[in-house]
Formats: sequence, C-alpha cells, structure tokens
Amino acid sequence: MPIYKAPLRDMRFVLNEVFNADAFWQSNPALSHVDSDTVSAILEEMAKVSENVLAPINRSGDEEGCSIENGVVTTPKGFKEAFKQYAEAGWIGLGADEQFGGQGMPKMVTVMTDEMIFAANPSFTLYPLLSIGAAMAMAQHATPEINAMYLPKMYSGEWAGTMCLTEPHSGTDLGIIRTKAEPLADGSYAISGTKIFITGGEHDLTENIVHLVLAKLPDAPAGSRGISLFLVPKFLVNEDGSLGARNPAAAGSIEHKMGIKGSATCVMNFDSAKGFLIGKVNQGLAAMFVMMNYERLSMGIQGLGASEAAYQNAAAYARDRLQGRSATGAKMPEKMADSLLVHPDVRRMLLRVRAHNEAARCFAMYAAQILDQTKYSDDPAVSQAAADRVALLTPVVKAYLTDKGFDACVEAQQVFGGHGFIREWGMEQYVRDTRIAQIYEGTNGVQAQDLMGRKVAKNNGVFVASFIAEIRDFNATLAGDANLAFIHNALEQAAKEIEVATQWVIEQANRNPDEINAAAVDYLHAFGLLCYAYMWAKMSKAAVGKDDVFYADKLRLAQFFTTRMLPELTSRLASLKSGSDAVMNFEMSYF
Amino acid sequence: MPIYKAPLRDMRFVLNEVFNADAFWQSNPALSHVDSDTVSAILEEMAKVSENVLAPINRSGDEEGCSIENGVVTTPKGFKEAFKQYAEAGWIGLGADEQFGGQGMPKMVTVMTDEMIFAANPSFTLYPLLSIGAAMAMAQHATPEINAMYLPKMYSGEWAGTMCLTEPHSGTDLGIIRTKAEPLADGSYAISGTKIFITGGEHDLTENIVHLVLAKLPDAPAGSRGISLFLVPKFLVNEDGSLGARNPAAAGSIEHKMGIKGSATCVMNFDSAKGFLIGKVNQGLAAMFVMMNYERLSMGIQGLGASEAAYQNAAAYARDRLQGRSATGAKMPEKMADSLLVHPDVRRMLLRVRAHNEAARCFAMYAAQILDQTKYSDDPAVSQAAADRVALLTPVVKAYLTDKGFDACVEAQQVFGGHGFIREWGMEQYVRDTRIAQIYEGTNGVQAQDLMGRKVAKNNGVFVASFIAEIRDFNATLAGDANLAFIHNALEQAAKEIEVATQWVIEQANRNPDEINAAAVDYLHAFGLLCYAYMWAKMSKAAVGKDDVFYADKLRLAQFFTTRMLPELTSRLASLKSGSDAVMNFEMSYF
Repeated sequence: MPIYKAPLRDMRFVLNEVFNADAFWQSNPALSHVDSDTVSAILEEMAKVSENVLAPINRSGDEEGCSIENGVVTTPKGFKEAFKQYAEAGWIGLGADEQFGGQGMPKMVTVMTDEMIFAANPSFTLYPLLSIGAAMAMAQHATPEINAMYLPKMYSGEWAGTMCLTEPHSGTDLGIIRTKAEPLADGSYAISGTKIFITGGEHDLTENIVHLVLAKLPDAPAGSRGISLFLVPKFLVNEDGSLGARNPAAAGSIEHKMGIKGSATCVMNFDSAKGFLIGKVNQGLAAMFVMMNYERLSMGIQGLGASEAAYQNAAAYARDRLQGRSATGAKMPEKMADSLLVHPDVRRMLLRVRAHNEAARCFAMYAAQILDQTKYSDDPAVSQAAADRVALLTPVVKAYLTDKGFDACVEAQQVFGGHGFIREWGMEQYVRDTRIAQIYEGTNGVQAQDLMGRKVAKNNGVFVASFIAEIRDFNATLAGDANLAFIHNALEQAAKEIEVATQWVIEQANRNPDEINAAAVDYLHAFGLLCYAYMWAKMSKAAVGKDDVFYADKLRLAQFFTTRMLPELTSRLASLKSGSDAVMNFEMSYF
Repeated sequence: MPIYKAPLRDMRFVLNEVFNADAFWQSNPALSHVDSDTVSAILEEMAKVSENVLAPINRSGDEEGCSIENGVVTTPKGFKEAFKQYAEAGWIGLGADEQFGGQGMPKMVTVMTDEMIFAANPSFTLYPLLSIGAAMAMAQHATPEINAMYLPKMYSGEWAGTMCLTEPHSGTDLGIIRTKAEPLADGSYAISGTKIFITGGEHDLTENIVHLVLAKLPDAPAGSRGISLFLVPKFLVNEDGSLGARNPAAAGSIEHKMGIKGSATCVMNFDSAKGFLIGKVNQGLAAMFVMMNYERLSMGIQGLGASEAAYQNAAAYARDRLQGRSATGAKMPEKMADSLLVHPDVRRMLLRVRAHNEAARCFAMYAAQILDQTKYSDDPAVSQAAADRVALLTPVVKAYLTDKGFDACVEAQQVFGGHGFIREWGMEQYVRDTRIAQIYEGTNGVQAQDLMGRKVAKNNGVFVASFIAEIRDFNATLAGDANLAFIHNALEQAAKEIEVATQWVIEQANRNPDEINAAAVDYLHAFGLLCYAYMWAKMSKAAVGKDDVFYADKLRLAQFFTTRMLPELTSRLASLKSGSDAVMNFEMSYF
C-alpha cells in the first residue's frame, strides 16, 4: 500500500522562512490570534489524521467505490467513521468564522491542511470541501437567519453541502441551463430539473445535505444574466433546527468514473423541491463564483497533494529497487545490482516531480497570503490590489498545478516500471484520481481562457504589469549575490519574455478576438513557469547562506528547475505565436 | 460507446502517395507478389474486422476483465469467439512466411493492420501479437523440426505464444534472473522459476500455449551472458503433433491493472516444466531480442492506434456538442449555442492529436519500409544500411509514439470535459489502456537510454549522421517551392539543432558516462520531433499542387505542426544541456 508522510519540514520552511508568516499575521489585527506555534501544532495534528485515518482508506475506497440502491448512496467502508472523527475534531470549520463555530484560521493555514488531506485521500476530501465551499457562498450571500440555522451544522459536519451547476446539455456554458424555479406563495420556490456531476449529491455521511442549485425564474432574461441561486436541503429544516419533510431532491444514479471512486458523483433530480433564494434574483452566478474561486484554489492543491504523495512513493521505490549498474561503475558491489537512484534518468524524473511540488506549495502559499489580504487587511488599497492579484492568479493556480500535478503523477508512476501499472501499488490511482482536477471546476482550457481574456486582455495587461513589477522589485534584492545569480537572471529573462508575449497577444486580440482563446493554454503554461521561477527565487533567497544540507538542497533543486524545466517557457511562447489562423483555417467538416 | 472507423484514405495516402509502395515492391523480387490493389483489399477487410468484431467488445472487455479460478483464466465475453473468427480468417499469419502457413505480407502492410486492431481493441490485440512475436523468434532460432511442428499451429491460432522474461526482482535488468534450467537426459531441460507480467500467460482462446522462457543453466556465467532461451509448451506435443501431458507451467494469479483489462497478465510458475533450448546456450537474450524489436515497433503502433481512435471520438463530440458562442459572433444563431469547434483551443487540442497521428502513421510506415529492406532486399549494402537505420529508429518509434500517443489520448479526453472522466464514454479507457505502452517492452526511459547510448554515442553518431544526410538529400528536393518553404526551412533547422546536440552529448559522454542517461529522454523527444518534421516534409511534398481539399488540409496540418508543435525541440535540447551534474549532485538520502 502506498505511503504518505505530511511534508511538515517543507511546509514550515515555506510558511515561516519564505513568507515570514508570524510577521504577516502580527501586522494584520484581524489575524493577530494566529501564530506559528499554534499553526505548527495544527499541522502536526492534521498530519496524524491524514496519515493514520484518511490514507489507510484511500486504496480500499478506490477498489470498493460508492454504490446506490433505491436512491440511497453508500460510501466505501471506513468513510463514515473517518468523516465522523474528522468532523468531531473540528477540521471542517478550521478556516470558518468563529461566529459559526469555526476556528478562524487563515487560508495560509488551510492551504497546507488541504494539501495533506488531498494527498491522503482525494475522494474523501471532496465531501468536506464541498460543504465548506457551499458554506462560504452562503456566508456571503444568504440571510443572517439562514446562516445562523445552517452554517454551524455544516461546519460541525452534521450536515453537508453541494454545488449543483451542470446539466446534461450545459457544462461550461451555464447560460443555457433549464432547471426552473417557480415562486411559491410563502416566498420560497419550487425547483425542478436535472443536475449532473454533483459531487456528494447523496451519501451516508451526514443526516442532511444542503444543495446550492442554479436555476431560472420563469421570467428570467436569457443567458447567464437570468440565473439565480437557491438553497435546497435534502430534508427541510424546522424552525427549531430539527429535520422536517424529505424534499424531492434525490440522486437518480451515480457516475462510473475513471477515478475518485470513493466520491459519490450523482445525477440529481429536483422535482418541485422546495428552495430558498440565496442572494439576489438573477445574480446567482456571481454568488456561486465566491464558491468557485475557493474551489479552484483547492483543486490546484489537489494536484499538488497527489504529486507529493506520488513523489514519496516513487522516491522510496527508487531507493529500494535494485536494478542495473551505474554507468560510472557499481555503487553497491555487494548487492546483486545498484539502486535505481544511480541512474540519472530516474533522478531526472524524481527531481522534476519534486521541483514541481515545492514550487507549487510555495505558489499556493503565495496565493493564500494574497487571499488572506483580501479578507483580513484593514487597508482598502491593499485589499483591492490583492483582489486584482487573486483574480489574475486563480486560473493559474487551478490549471497549472493540476496540469503539472497530473504529469507529475504519470512521471512518478513511470519510476515503478511495470509495477506502476498494477493497482495494488497505488501509483495508477494517483494518476486516475488527479485527472479529474484538470477537468472539474472549469476545465483547464476554460481557466486559460479566463486568464488570457478576462484577466489579461480585458484590462490591457494591467494586472500582469503589476505582477511583473512586483517580481522585478523582489528580484532586485537578489542582485549582486553570486550564489543567486542563476535564479536572478533566469527570473528576469522569464519576466521579460512574458511581458513581451503579453503585449503581443493583446495587440493580436484587438484585431481578432479568436487570438485570445488560441493563445490561452500556451500562455497559461508559460505564465505558470514564470510563477514557479518567482517562487524558486523566493525559496532560494530564504535558503542562501544557511548552513544546513536542507538549504543547500533547496538551491540545488532551484538550479535543476532553472536549467531543466524553465526552458519550456520559450517554446510555449513560440508555439503561441502561431496565432489563431493556424487552427481556424480548417473547415468544420475537416474534424 | 466509442466509435472507430479505420482511416483508410489516410493509410492509402501514406502507402501509395508518400512511399510509392508499388514501385518499392516491384523493385524487390522477394516482394513482387505484393501490389497496392491486393493490399487495399486486405485493409478493407481488416477495417471490417476491427470496426465490427473487435471494437464492439473493447468497452465490455474493460468492464468485465479477465478472471482466474484454480489456474484457469477466462477472458471477457466475446473474446473467444472473436479470436476464433480472427484466426480462421488467417489474420495471425498475415505477415508470416508462406512455408508456415502465413500470407507473406511485408511490414508495410501489417503496420497498418496493427494500427487498426490496436485502435479497436488493444487488450484483444495482445493475444495474437505475442504469438507472432514468439513465432518470429522461433523462426530465426529454433530447429527446423520445432518450427515445422509449432509455427503453423501458432499462425493458425490453434496455439498461442508468450514471452517470459520478467521476474519479481528482475525487470529491465535481466542479467539477474533466477529461473533455472536443469539439463535432462533426453536433451531437454527442467525449467523452474517464477515469471511475472506475462501477457497471455494463460487464457481460454487456444488449445495450447507456447512459452518462450529466459532461464539460466547451472553453470551459466553471471549476468546477461548467461541467459538461455527455452520453449516451454503448456501441453507437451507428441510426435504426431497431438497434445500430450500437461507441463507444470501454470498461472498462479493474474494482475489487477490500470488498463488493458481484457488482456490476461499472469504470474507464471514453472515447476520443473519440460523445456527445449531455442538457439544456442547462453545466447538467449539475442534470440529474444528478435522478438523484442518486433514488439517494440508494435508498441509504438499501439500508441498511434489509441490516439487515432481517441481523435475520432473527440472530433465527433466537439462537432456535436453545443456550448458557448464564438468570440467572433454566433456561428449557429439558430441553435442554443455554437459547436465546440468554434473555440480555437478545442481545435488546438484536436489538431495536436491529429498532427501526431498523421506523422506517427507516416513514421511507422517509414520504419516498416526499412524493416522490409532488411528482410527482403537482395543488395547486402542496402540491407545493412537498413539494419543500422532500424537500430537507430526502433527506440524512437516505440517511445516517442507511445509518449505522444498517451498525451494525445489525455488531450482528446479533455475535449469531452466532465464526460471524458465517465467510463461509458470510453475516453478514459484509451488513456488507461495506452499508459502501459510507455512501460512494457522496455520502459521509454530504457528506450531513450538505448538510443542515446548504443545507437548514438557508442558509434560516435554515425547512424545519426547518415540519417541527417538522408534528410538533407530529401529536403533539397523541396528547395525553391514557395509552398513548401515553411517545412523546408523548419526541417533544416531541426536537423541542424539535432546535429549540434548530438555532438555535444557525445563529447560530454566521453568525459562522464552519466551524461548519456541524463540526456536520454530529452534527446529522444527532440529526435522524435525531427522525425515528425521529416515525415511532414514527405507528406507535404506528396500533397503540394494537388487539387483537392484533402491535400490542402495536409499542408495546413503540416503548417500547424511546424509552428505549434515543433518549437518544443528547442526547449528539449536546452533542458538536455543542464547535464548530469544537475541530477547527480544530490546525495542518495535526499530522495
């Protein structure tokens, strides 16, 4: 069975040494209750939960999967007990407001706990994650009465939450959904329609499930401006908080999937189910996007968690597996063969995965700190700048971390040779489970379109210019240190290339709007590499001059990233320059 | 359920218009019985078999998988009947010598039929494929008596064949196998040991199974020079060809795998099983490599077949799925949304897959023609040059076509959005089934090591120089045609970059042998891109000036390849230059 140990040392390095978390928290009055000692204790506890409670039911959950009979969904053996334990320890409310029973921890903390639980058991993790996402959307848009009634139960894990967006004919294009909301005399609505791909739509973990459902009022305008958001509980809730009648919101079936088989993905049928408006009429998409942005960051973390776990297993296998001899002479002459680690290509694979993991962890923390600024800063200018930066980086975190996370799982699997293809070893499960992260919560192509269109071209590159200015300011602090020249130069080069390419795409797009989508994915990958280079520069600065092999290895891995992985940036931008004609010149019938 | 139509038009284009097969066959007396009309009829028949017999049991075979009870393996529903039909039509012997009941078709033909059956049903395909591989090794190394007895039965599909190499502790490194062969008084051997990952080691498709087993004699030298090859039939064969006693060569279990679940992958226990030496004592690896090289080309075709099938499904889905609107204004205003094909990024994904498929098909044919020269040419100089070229290209075909084939399946799956993750759509099966092709028959890392070490550095780049000279000769014929300038220039640039990088690696390797393996995978990918550029140049030359949209589209796709995909070559070579220090400088304990 696969192993997993939470990478606490690396997490502390990023949190404390790269981002100086204590100083940040102390400088924000709203976060002064947080300190690195408390956080360290939290991480250690979550490490135990991940390693000892969640990881042990990851393989078995995949083999068993979920089942449905007469609308009743059963999760794999052990999930119910693990959820109870997880909920009772207060983990679901770790990042929630204290007024609703949460522990008020900032994103800089939950980004690390999310990594651990995704690494240990992504199928399990989706259940509490969707609850948190739904609760967040409600906290911002629902009435105080609803929130007082629902949120404490959701954060305590007595109830769960879902998001119901997709319909059979309507995925990315939510403007064409058909689910209807008919106003009722009591101010509530009758919701009717079919939703698909509903994570945790039905299960046996909680006594109630709170669905957030996108639907259209009878007189709603066409398209995405006519979508409203409704709360539809599985069981209606009485005024005293006890459960009332069963609402006709039920799972018709569960999907048979490539991976995350322990997560129940449901087709949900709403048959005049009673629903309550959340936020304003026809502004449902905006309310839902609170949740979507939160989920998107988490999906990025899913990619990271999986590839961290995959790395640990591949490294252990490579260490122990004896096969062949070093090209420079036997390194273990007393053994029948040398460790796989004598082969440069095996190391190359492992280091690619690890360089991704460490950059991704740092990047997630960077994004988390900015998210925390949007929420906790008392300076409106800081908060607004942070909101702009989050808007720019959210699609990058989601798409880049999951694309590279998937590639990393495939690469780690490759280290195992034939054993990587065998289910019992668990490596192929990382590949299958991680694949979904590139697809759900907006496919990575849609993320790239969002980045290139709304976050870059639409504002004429202002967000990018500000990001690059920050990078240059930071990079200036590395100048003159010979030990950091390699990353200093690489980062400036990468920033310059992105700067030029950004202007080029914007100019092209002014002539032809198709240029945006044609450039999007290559641009996102090049941009992701710039972000990773920036993170490696931050980590290098934190590591340089410190007298421990831990820090020397950070610099070595930064060097590996710079020389071995960063060159892709140039070819991505070269590909992008082929423009939209190269794809649009074919007739539809060609395909 | 997924669709599949054999791409006959494209196959004929490559065979007849790019490679002028008729002229080639007529110029080789040993192949004068082959002509394009006959081949066309064969392809049409095989298209029917693939589309109507094999494809329909691909999804169900994956869902059902193989099972074992008391050593008896049952293949999925329909496999037995399909195998019977396939065998009785003579397909297994299509490429076999007529003296053993084969049809004597050259590799230039079977490379296309292999593509079809791999596209339709890779799990099924492995059963006849392993038989053919085993038969080929026997044809070259076994005694005439053994061949007369066994080969006709194997080509007729009455019996099947396997290759038994891997042991639990011994995969890539075959020098450390432990299976023993004790000489018996009658000249045969008692074979004892455990082999794993044995494709088709046991099944219910044939009345007998012929295992080719690597084992060591008691006095064998250590390492790979002490390995001999043995024929170990499941049932011993009487002198009259009838079946005799059950040999103690049995399946202990079957593996639970990520994919190719309809293919029985067995743990085989040999318990003093009677075996017969094939070829010379201690020269088993060389004999087995006849089979390995054949298999390696076929594995490349597996990658191609899967991505062709994946492309067809993704293109059909993109055409039919209505979602969102074109950035340049609605293209289907009467519909609720436009086809996915209005989105440049969807086209980008589809075109990447298709540009790979067409280049891979052409490259496989190119390799097949050279293989045919090694076998059929009556000019020893041509035959030797062809053998050298095959040696150079075999690892590239195997690794590059499967790496890109896997990526292509993932990309085609992405076109489906959430539906790509659902088993019923079949896209995720292409991904799972194709993943193994990067691993078995020598992992792609091992292929890259073979290319960089034995095929490039060891002969000081002579094979590469000769290949590049051929490319330049060909490319000179494109000079001056303005319609071909784009590919002419791109090909020369790619050839030059590979030329320089080859010299660079060889020089580095002279100082440090680790440089070979450190450079191997990036070199192979850059080399693969050069090969694809060469194929696109060949296809462009065959298409230019012809008055049909079919040909105009070939040139458009060549352009897409050149501007959108070829730039990766440069970054691969930049990465490679980081050298081995970047990976070897870490202590073993770091991992």
